[in-house]
Amino acid sequence: MNEVRIGLIGAGRIGKLHGDNLTRFVTGARVEALAEIRLQDEQRAWAEKNGIKKIHGDPVEIWKDPDIDAVFICSSTDTHADFIIQAARAGKHIFCEKPIHTDVQKIKEALEEVKKAGVKLQVGFVRRFDHNHRKVHDTVASGKLGSPHVIKITSRDPEGPPLSYIAVSGGIFMDMTIHDFDMARYLSCSEVTEVSAYGTVLIDQEYKKYEDADTVAVMLKFENGALGIIDNSRASHYGYDQRTEVHCAKGCVQAANDLNDTSMISTMDGVICEKPTWFFLERYNNAFIAEAQDFVNSVLQDSTTPVNGEDGLMAVYIAQAANRSLKENRPVKLSEVM
Amino acid sequence: MNEVRIGLIGAGRIGKLHGDNLTRFVTGARVEALAEIRLQDEQRAWAEKNGIKKIHGDPVEIWKDPDIDAVFICSSTDTHADFIIQAARAGKHIFCEKPIHTDVQKIKEALEEVKKAGVKLQVGFVRRFDHNHRKVHDTVASGKLGSPHVIKITSRDPEGPPLSYIAVSGGIFMDMTIHDFDMARYLSCSEVTEVSAYGTVLIDQEYKKYEDADTVAVMLKFENGALGIIDNSRASHYGYDQRTEVHCAKGCVQAANDLNDTSMISTMDGVICEKPTWFFLERYNNAFIAEAQDFVNSVLQDSTTPVNGEDGLMAVYIAQAANRSLKENRPVKLSEVM
Amino acid sequence: MNEVRIGLIGAGRIGKLHGDNLTRFVTGARVEALAEIRLQDEQRAWAEKNGIKKIHGDPVEIWKDPDIDAVFICSSTDTHADFIIQAARAGKHIFCEKPIHTDVQKIKEALEEVKKAGVKLQVGFVRRFDHNHRKVHDTVASGKLGSPHVIKITSRDPEGPPLSYIAVSGGIFMDMTIHDFDMARYLSCSEVTEVSAYGTVLIDQEYKKYEDADTVAVMLKFENGALGIIDNSRASHYGYDQRTEVHCAKGCVQAANDLNDTSMISTMDGVICEKPTWFFLERYNNAFIAEAQDFVNSVLQDSTTPVNGEDGLMAVYIAQAANRSLKENRPVKLSEVM
Amino acid sequence: MNEVRIGLIGAGRIGKLHGDNLTRFVTGARVEALAEIRLQDEQRAWAEKNGIKKIHGDPVEIWKDPDIDAVFICSSTDTHADFIIQAARAGKHIFCEKPIHTDVQKIKEALEEVKKAGVKLQVGFVRRFDHNHRKVHDTVASGKLGSPHVIKITSRDPEGPPLSYIAVSGGIFMDMTIHDFDMARYLSCSEVTEVSAYGTVLIDQEYKKYEDADTVAVMLKFENGALGIIDNSRASHYGYDQRTEVHCAKGCVQAANDLNDTSMISTMDGVICEKPTWFFLERYNNAFIAEAQDFVNSVLQDSTTPVNGEDGLMAVYIAQAANRSLKENRPVKLSEVM
Repeated sequence: MNEVRIGLIGAGRIGKLHGDNLTRFVTGARVEALAEIRLQDEQRAWAEKNGIKKIHGDPVEIWKDPDIDAVFICSSTDTHADFIIQAARAGKHIFCEKPIHTDVQKIKEALEEVKKAGVKLQVGFVRRFDHNHRKVHDTVASGKLGSPHVIKITSRDPEGPPLSYIAVSGGIFMDMTIHDFDMARYLSCSEVTEVSAYGTVLIDQEYKKYEDADTVAVMLKFENGALGIIDNSRASHYGYDQRTEVHCAKGCVQAANDLNDTSMISTMDGVICEKPTWFFLERYNNAFIAEAQDFVNSVLQDSTTPVNGEDGLMAVYIAQAANRSLKENRPVKLSEVM
Repeated sequence: MNEVRIGLIGAGRIGKLHGDNLTRFVTGARVEALAEIRLQDEQRAWAEKNGIKKIHGDPVEIWKDPDIDAVFICSSTDTHADFIIQAARAGKHIFCEKPIHTDVQKIKEALEEVKKAGVKLQVGFVRRFDHNHRKVHDTVASGKLGSPHVIKITSRDPEGPPLSYIAVSGGIFMDMTIHDFDMARYLSCSEVTEVSAYGTVLIDQEYKKYEDADTVAVMLKFENGALGIIDNSRASHYGYDQRTEVHCAKGCVQAANDLNDTSMISTMDGVICEKPTWFFLERYNNAFIAEAQDFVNSVLQDSTTPVNGEDGLMAVYIAQAANRSLKENRPVKLSEVM
Repeated sequence: MNEVRIGLIGAGRIGKLHGDNLTRFVTGARVEALAEIRLQDEQRAWAEKNGIKKIHGDPVEIWKDPDIDAVFICSSTDTHADFIIQAARAGKHIFCEKPIHTDVQKIKEALEEVKKAGVKLQVGFVRRFDHNHRKVHDTVASGKLGSPHVIKITSRDPEGPPLSYIAVSGGIFMDMTIHDFDMARYLSCSEVTEVSAYGTVLIDQEYKKYEDADTVAVMLKFENGALGIIDNSRASHYGYDQRTEVHCAKGCVQAANDLNDTSMISTMDGVICEKPTWFFLERYNNAFIAEAQDFVNSVLQDSTTPVNGEDGLMAVYIAQAANRSLKENRPVKLSEVM
Repeated sequence: MNEVRIGLIGAGRIGKLHGDNLTRFVTGARVEALAEIRLQDEQRAWAEKNGIKKIHGDPVEIWKDPDIDAVFICSSTDTHADFIIQAARAGKHIFCEKPIHTDVQKIKEALEEVKKAGVKLQVGFVRRFDHNHRKVHDTVASGKLGSPHVIKITSRDPEGPPLSYIAVSGGIFMDMTIHDFDMARYLSCSEVTEVSAYGTVLIDQEYKKYEDADTVAVMLKFENGALGIIDNSRASHYGYDQRTEVHCAKGCVQAANDLNDTSMISTMDGVICEKPTWFFLERYNNAFIAEAQDFVNSVLQDSTTPVNGEDGLMAVYIAQAANRSLKENRPVKLSEVM
């Protein structure tokens, strides 16, 4: 195989992002078909502009298509597990957006089918492919700083999502912190064993209606003895604050934000520098390309995907432990939810 | 009064530091006498060099001396409360190093005597006088960023103290984190209501003998709804890592480390910058001067001291809650220990 | 017109770069044809992969093609002026790589033909499209810092080109500093009136054979009274050092380098940060896209190109003045070479 | 000798600064006497507060005093050379503020007397003792970056001096840039051989009356083949901009400004950092102490002073070459003025 022919499931914001990247920036990939249940004219136009020839209303057309090697599942979260199962049964390799599902049982079923079918599965934890976080991970993993002691993750969105989204998001831990839970595993090179979560509503009192928090702090314990700290906010206002930091036995590695530009303006009133990039599209643009390229390479070279189904499952376990910790105001061991 | 005549109690490292500062850098102050129970030749020489004319073995000589207006209590922690009581009864104004005592009852007795005597008391939470942390506090207190949401404090020593010190330190929360507990109150402009503490031994297994931790993470809840995060380590190896950060409704204010110099060396092997200043003497040198100056000013102008006995007591309460939280692995409300 | 059909002249490094960008990232553009005099299999394969259907050995095929609206001249420098003349006579809009030519008379002839033909011409001073330098320019141009006083430009390549290139480069001022001469005009919002140039050979003694320098410093005077300073090196070794700085009546605006990542590794041996991006492909990647997009927009909207033929000519005048200044070791007024 | 007894000549701003430092921060020094021709009450009070017992109106009292080992000449520039001669004849070691004199012949006479008398002489080029610039010098001098190629110095005052000062300052090159000329020699580890100076009046048109410039740019050639660039301004408005940078064969070393604090405030309106320290008292405070300590150590240990009379003379030669270059608008070789 020298080209992976891809069926794209879903043409929402993230689906189009992957479609654009696969068409323009990913070597060895071609988007062969799109399946979008609620297909709109604008989506059809987008697909045609990108040279996607087959446009379907039902993903079943993709499972059936022998000219498709792999799928990108970018539909709504509740459909992920079912589509994984169907794609696996059809023998398609699978890239699936995070989270696989909010229900652990469904995830396990999906992973079981993937295993049975012998297809590849990659979960969209895109931050692992960011140049900054990757440098932090690589430095820790190299062992040159000794064993990790404290992992610190700051992750703050610029603005909260619409309340309609909060209603179906699964809560801040499952929707937003899940990226940080994966990052915690990635940066510590270890597994989380316990979670203590604090959460509160400080930005928008409407969150209370959904029993959700908009500002959270989480402490973690890891198998290798390290401790972890995460803080999240739904609204920083100054941009996408994405910093990571690992303190190890011999020293520390940190990654600061990417900025819009490197300018510095000095006057008698002060010195003004640029803000962080605005949100995930700006910050993780190259990371989205890199994760798609890695998936495509895994298929082409028949090698292991860099983020697999277990990684998807583990992050959900941690999110569930955090939910329970917040609700019961006590530390919760991962073993309680696994 | 246009000069505060000071009796220095204790000529250990911190006593000499205050003595030097009062002699050289503090306007309106004169060190009149030194009392040091285990007076050594080297200490006597130091005192003479600084023009301290009266040198005693017993602080009682200082309480009796009508030419002394105020005392700096820099003796061992276990003597602080008693010396406060004796100084207050003698009508001397009091600067006392932190912590006042590890036993709340003793602190309360001491504060009661201070109140009765109507003397001034300032506790040595020196970090409040650091140019960086003060800027963070002032920005929050100004209200221009809106109400505080998350307070983050990183405080990492370059090297652990000798184990002999660990044996008598009162534990990491009472000895080291106590500065951060005070900083948390200072930066949040609020009171801590609950503490969740994680702690572990990763640097030196000998700490286990003393049932102490060398690496800790702490989450806090505040009366004003904010959340707090502290991380400490006894040994960073790269210097004194002292950073603070407050996220508020409209934005964030952060303070980075002071560095030894601003140099940057770029070669094909990488770009090398300078390390943070080594330890508290380097970092908080000017803050020690500023706190002494403020105390002296309070006496001269008969105004309120910037850090009072209540501040000393509150930090001890939080440390006790942290101790209990670590021991029982659960969040502990301040009301449980007050 | 809703799509500009482009004929690409030259498929060397810079030609392929523009071809890739026009195909993938520039909206409203399509590469219709390639003309490459010394066409190689690798270039043909590249063109086919990018969907360029017409592949010629002679640019004349492009002048003749009625389906081509505009050309990108990316052939060797000595051909630029002639190709501009031919393209203009054929009524094609023109994007031309810098410099237009090293001979002022040839440039004038070319600009005359462009004028006569009424076609658009844009010269490839790509740095004007860099996010950092543009921010510096925009800040100066906004007038909020008052009039410019001193313009400072640092431009250092990571590694020298092969000596074979030096032989035909036209010298460091015409080949490399020419970008900074354009930047000086761009950032000062004014015209250069005098040049004082110092140059020497410190990196590779072979440069002396070509009577060229590898390390230069240049001072400029501007019409608006400002002074300018440029320093160049052919080999920094640590990456592409591209910094600009303008001091104005009320303050200063500076732009630092873009770095590979934002990591900082702290150990007892020091603090290591990342190097600047390696060279122009890494640093000005997005700027190349932006300049092509602006050119395409100018054609589509029949508006002025952001960098025109006069800009191309002025930079060559300044380079000639610098050459004379270096040779005669004296300040040279622009009027002497114009 | 275990204490250097010092006679202070002049109690203006810089004299009091040295007096305070010698009294408080310099080990092994005591200010024995002050001579101030126009002695005022405020100066007498200052001297008494610092424990200076002998207060004279005429320096001759200091030359005659057998209890004085060394003098600090902090009187007006035109008196420096004469006082050096008198002090040397009296056998006193000499610290003299910069410049020694604006007339080379006078300097030579003074140095001759110093040589004859065998006393020590140190000139007050205080920036050599700054932690940042020293790190740059030490890195270059270590040879680890290879030979120096380009030396860049930015030196911008926050605000211009009163015009009355301009009238007697000797011009910007002799008064202000002279520090940078010394820095150029210090950082290059070489000697200047040629100067090209540009200068203009952009800040205050009154400078024209004094035939002085307020904004200058200077290029230098060095004996070791390196090139140098200096830019100066009398009024940056944002603080004291003092940066140095040396590009060498294998890499670069730079020093950024010291800032008032390390704070960073991020909001939707931008990111605000602190300004550089305001002026030389703030920036070079510790450097003033270090240079005085080094002088005192040289006397106590009978060792070489770190900045000597030749250094003082060379900087004046370079300033004279710059003056001639500016006047005649041509490069001027040092040999023309020596």
